[in-house]
Amino acid sequence: MTLSSLGEFALIRRLAGLLSDPSPEDVILGIGDDAAVLRFGSEYLVATTDTMVDGVHFIGERVPWEDTGWKSLASNVSDIAAMGATPLFALVTLALPADARVEDSEALYAGLRACAGAYGVAVVGGDIVRAPQVSITVALLGRSEQRDGNPLLLRRDGAQVGDVIAVVGTVGDSAAGLLRLLEGASADDPLARAHLHPVPNVAVGAKAVAAGIRCGIDVSDGLLQDIGHICEMSGVGAIVRALDVPISDELRRAYPEDVLRLACTGGEDYQLVLAAPHPLIEALAKLVTERISIIGEIVESPDHRARLLDADGNESSFPQTGWDAFRS
Amino acid sequence: MTLSSLGEFALIRRLAGLLSDPSPEDVILGIGDDAAVLRFGSEYLVATTDTMVDGVHFIGERVPWEDTGWKSLASNVSDIAAMGATPLFALVTLALPADARVEDSEALYAGLRACAGAYGVAVVGGDIVRAPQVSITVALLGRSEQRDGNPLLLRRDGAQVGDVIAVVGTVGDSAAGLLRLLEGASADDPLARAHLHPVPNVAVGAKAVAAGIRCGIDVSDGLLQDIGHICEMSGVGAIVRALDVPISDELRRAYPEDVLRLACTGGEDYQLVLAAPHPLIEALAKLVTERISIIGEIVESPDHRARLLDADGNESSFPQTGWDAFRS
Repeated sequence: MTLSSLGEFALIRRLAGLLSDPSPEDVILGIGDDAAVLRFGSEYLVATTDTMVDGVHFIGERVPWEDTGWKSLASNVSDIAAMGATPLFALVTLALPADARVEDSEALYAGLRACAGAYGVAVVGGDIVRAPQVSITVALLGRSEQRDGNPLLLRRDGAQVGDVIAVVGTVGDSAAGLLRLLEGASADDPLARAHLHPVPNVAVGAKAVAAGIRCGIDVSDGLLQDIGHICEMSGVGAIVRALDVPISDELRRAYPEDVLRLACTGGEDYQLVLAAPHPLIEALAKLVTERISIIGEIVESPDHRARLLDADGNESSFPQTGWDAFRS
Repeated sequence: MTLSSLGEFALIRRLAGLLSDPSPEDVILGIGDDAAVLRFGSEYLVATTDTMVDGVHFIGERVPWEDTGWKSLASNVSDIAAMGATPLFALVTLALPADARVEDSEALYAGLRACAGAYGVAVVGGDIVRAPQVSITVALLGRSEQRDGNPLLLRRDGAQVGDVIAVVGTVGDSAAGLLRLLEGASADDPLARAHLHPVPNVAVGAKAVAAGIRCGIDVSDGLLQDIGHICEMSGVGAIVRALDVPISDELRRAYPEDVLRLACTGGEDYQLVLAAPHPLIEALAKLVTERISIIGEIVESPDHRARLLDADGNESSFPQTGWDAFRS
């Protein structure tokens, strides 16, 4: 069987199953959340890794290497933020063809360094290997705050029926930015910036766990698909009201016909999605300057799906709910 | 400038220079050793990453996927062993073409799991991405023992003039195994096993730091080149006596004309090389069952090189001292 017929998520389940010996007790959270959570001495370590491949996750010829460097670290920073944790240390692996230009690698590193500086991350090691095309793999380690000896986390399995669903900032800009780039826009285009230079919500995540919120994920695959991950892991369903999904003016202007699809399935926004009792979300909204929008609720549902409802309460759907690495 | 004209080590120096802001005080060792060492609460975390690319580091069509899975983790385990630390947690990134066979990925994971089981490592997360060819990137985290609040480490910069240089086991078998495979030998060939299924020296590394040894590296690039890394980082020179380099009977039989070149420049043996005062090496040799061979000494030398001396005390050299990812 080939991967394209199986799909990314079924493959992950199969491979994770091969590793599913009982985890050592120091593994608080293993495969299946935005990051692993590990007991290390008297602290909790949060660890994640994410890869960008030229021609799959970015087009090296079309976008500035500095942006690719920024984004390769930012996507990992977002995974740490989606646990409510603080990023600290990164390992960076660069795969490069032998005829790659040194200047491009240096620009990539400059972008990576800018992101590291913005989030207080130290790049402490890595690997450089030869490969037919460029790819960048970052492994990022962070720390989780704790209370009474337990880590304070935003977990995918923490949603409860009756929770509201909130999203930080706006969604869809990144997918719109990719369309703009493919149409020939420059990397300076405001929507292209959202795609090339995402700004993860680390401070919001930290304030969310401090405020008592215990469920979250970042929008990497696509809003509906990512809320679907929460539903599966928490054994619940979700409704999302289309009218309440926060959309930027730039997106409305650029793709008026396609706003909702881009916002709900686009992915790579690296915004936080939270599920929690309404008063906790309200408390958080008072602590941060970022826009926090309530877009739906956690409900009982045997099929553990996220449903998008239009203004009339009817379900909307799209041919694809989000990103799958192996299906086209 | 292209990477092939610059070379791997010059590129690493240039890129590391771009990141060389003063490290936070929690970074005990950053870029430049086998692994990074990080203060994390009251413990010391050791972190490394290593990648294998199909067609560069292995030939997917020619070797069992299970062996590739084992080796992708084992090479990282060896980096942790080369710090004198204990491996604990791994993140695994698999890059795969969409038409890859699911069964191959499962075999790869089975090998990875076998290595994880052998060394007490928990695979706690990772990433699966689409790419034109297969590659496996492992990030591995471990723990360093400490005494009086300081980590007990085998550092590349820990060699002192007068230290003896010792190597664990034999060297050259892996390079000979690669030659055998290229000549059509099966994966069961004993030398091929050394290439495909290396067995890192974790227990020896731990006993070495406990015995007071403070300098070490693993043979990944090639014996002389790896001792050269110790020389550069410690600001010393080294002499290696060709007659004392430990060589297996299989290697002598298979490539009698080429024994010394394979043993001294071959790489990927994943054996430990240690530099320490003679009595400490003797003490270690009594604590372990593995063969420990003294092969040379650390000497003063302004050019920080490792010199190979033949039976008459004359310097031998080879066209290449070891692996460079970008020079051919």
